[in-house]
Amino acid sequence: MTALQNDTFLRALMREPTPYTPIWIMRQAGRYLPEYNATRKKAGSFLGLAKNPDYCTEVTLQPLDRFKLDAAILFSDILTIPDAMGLGLYFVEGEGPKFERTVRTEEDVRKLPVADIGQLKYVTDAVAQIRRALKGRVPLIGFSGSPFTLACYMIEGGGSDDFRQVKTMLYQRPDLLHEILEKNTQSVIAYLNAQIDAGAQALMLFDTWGGALSHSAYQQFSLAYATRVMAGLKRSNEGRVVPRVFFTKGGGLWLESMAECGADALGLDWTISLSEAKRRVGHKVALQGNLDPNVLFGDAATIEREAARVLDEFAHDKNADGHVFNLGHGISQFTNPDHVEALVNAVHRASARV
Amino acid sequence: MTALQNDTFLRALMREPTPYTPIWIMRQAGRYLPEYNATRKKAGSFLGLAKNPDYCTEVTLQPLDRFKLDAAILFSDILTIPDAMGLGLYFVEGEGPKFERTVRTEEDVRKLPVADIGQLKYVTDAVAQIRRALKGRVPLIGFSGSPFTLACYMIEGGGSDDFRQVKTMLYQRPDLLHEILEKNTQSVIAYLNAQIDAGAQALMLFDTWGGALSHSAYQQFSLAYATRVMAGLKRSNEGRVVPRVFFTKGGGLWLESMAECGADALGLDWTISLSEAKRRVGHKVALQGNLDPNVLFGDAATIEREAARVLDEFAHDKNADGHVFNLGHGISQFTNPDHVEALVNAVHRASARV
Repeated sequence: MTALQNDTFLRALMREPTPYTPIWIMRQAGRYLPEYNATRKKAGSFLGLAKNPDYCTEVTLQPLDRFKLDAAILFSDILTIPDAMGLGLYFVEGEGPKFERTVRTEEDVRKLPVADIGQLKYVTDAVAQIRRALKGRVPLIGFSGSPFTLACYMIEGGGSDDFRQVKTMLYQRPDLLHEILEKNTQSVIAYLNAQIDAGAQALMLFDTWGGALSHSAYQQFSLAYATRVMAGLKRSNEGRVVPRVFFTKGGGLWLESMAECGADALGLDWTISLSEAKRRVGHKVALQGNLDPNVLFGDAATIEREAARVLDEFAHDKNADGHVFNLGHGISQFTNPDHVEALVNAVHRASARV
Repeated sequence: MTALQNDTFLRALMREPTPYTPIWIMRQAGRYLPEYNATRKKAGSFLGLAKNPDYCTEVTLQPLDRFKLDAAILFSDILTIPDAMGLGLYFVEGEGPKFERTVRTEEDVRKLPVADIGQLKYVTDAVAQIRRALKGRVPLIGFSGSPFTLACYMIEGGGSDDFRQVKTMLYQRPDLLHEILEKNTQSVIAYLNAQIDAGAQALMLFDTWGGALSHSAYQQFSLAYATRVMAGLKRSNEGRVVPRVFFTKGGGLWLESMAECGADALGLDWTISLSEAKRRVGHKVALQGNLDPNVLFGDAATIEREAARVLDEFAHDKNADGHVFNLGHGISQFTNPDHVEALVNAVHRASARV
């Protein structure tokens, strides 16, 4: 493999010194970019794009050609695993993901297989192809949905604003939910290790919906399984540690326990000050985040001011190492790409170590 | 006025001793009750119900006739104020509230009046009529949306999952958002004081969407105005303090500053342990909450166990005073009313002071 030219992202995740604070952006290859929309049109559909390694490679590299980002992230969907379990992922324009089959009854749960990683070859092929195309410019992040977040979609059959079906199972038949989570955990471990084998240099576990749980249910039904995932992952590849980031949206109250899960870094949304987060857990893990994506609807001066505020909150103790700048959630499709450029440059400029 | 027969709710809000932990339930008069649906059918529409004091009285009392609840809450909508500002509130079946006119441009903001409380006479009439109908059984809670939460609906024109319009204004034209919040604050103060004059014995300020803000934006755009509201409210009526509860859904990270806003109690959602919340702020304010409404989809044994867990978390220091039991958010329309009865009885039984 080609030598890595910019390893600031990997070093920051391991809390090693870097010459500036690295930045990448959740959903950086996405609909706010006209070139992404052009590729997607060529592909015919979202799944036509996500299941084709050539297109995945193309869109993964698009934001890197525009902005001085410090990491690439595999273009894929978090629901590839339940799809490989046979649930039939599909998309309705403007409505988000859906599954043809849900997992709600005892019989549904018994029949549910651990995902066949062979069916996810389109993902590992994409990882390998992207790595080659990157030619060592920046590291490549692989990812998966967390066992609990995958279970939410599998049980609800799509998105939800109250998670009524998931929580009905949680409070009526916790044994069934644990059985789903066990299968998801085995699947996620195999999937992420296959991504490492294919060339992923860092991993992110997205727990998008863990924040919908009560504090005690979160520990049992989300964090316990995320911890199992971390323990099952290969620690290094190509002679270098593969760092892991764990992100529970809305998890700010639970950082102390999250910091024990085996991740090298925690992703944070914008509801918590990085100075508070660092005081609480910064001696154990790096932190990734946490600008409100909506700041990008402001003008350049506002973006620079808010980016500086996030950087300063992290470096309140005069040590800026161990911070990866990011948004607190995925970038909005309505964002002006010029504002992303303003952000990336502002972060690099304001964080340059003197 | 008739003497109050059960003042446990008012006493708990003031952190005075009570013989058991009082309970009421957010949205306790609602669609999970067949008798509510019958009244609503009679009224023809949600607004036909909410704007008619006779119907409001009828549905406010319905849950009290079924369950041994310790407080009644005025049946109304949080969007009465923007409606009285001329924005044209309406409801589309299954879609939640909408406004005919939004407030987005400088001209929209300049034209926006402070609400004419005279136009909200249907609410104060309902308060007075409910007080008479209650005959002192339990205290009556009045309420309003917070200035920020009202602004969200006014700017978005309805609900939102990303608050893009609100945050665009916040980051592009914070002066305009402050101007809206100023008008909302004056309106909410006048509205809540009118509810006190009409007979409300406690008040709740619902900040349903403050949790969508970044930690620093929350302070400036939600909490600062909630604090102004608290300072503008009458402290007592009929010779008794009128306690105030402030609830920011998703506000668990900000409890210390919320406890300084002038409220007697803070409402909490289910993401925080009451023992942690009490350690952080329980010497300043009472706490109201915080069972996940979805627990009510479990069986009676689960409901009893989870209710006991919430009670025990609050009373971890052996002092159960200063706690009002509630759900962490409104009850789901899909809830079995028998499960509510199980909850109310479980809370009273398990919390009886020996």
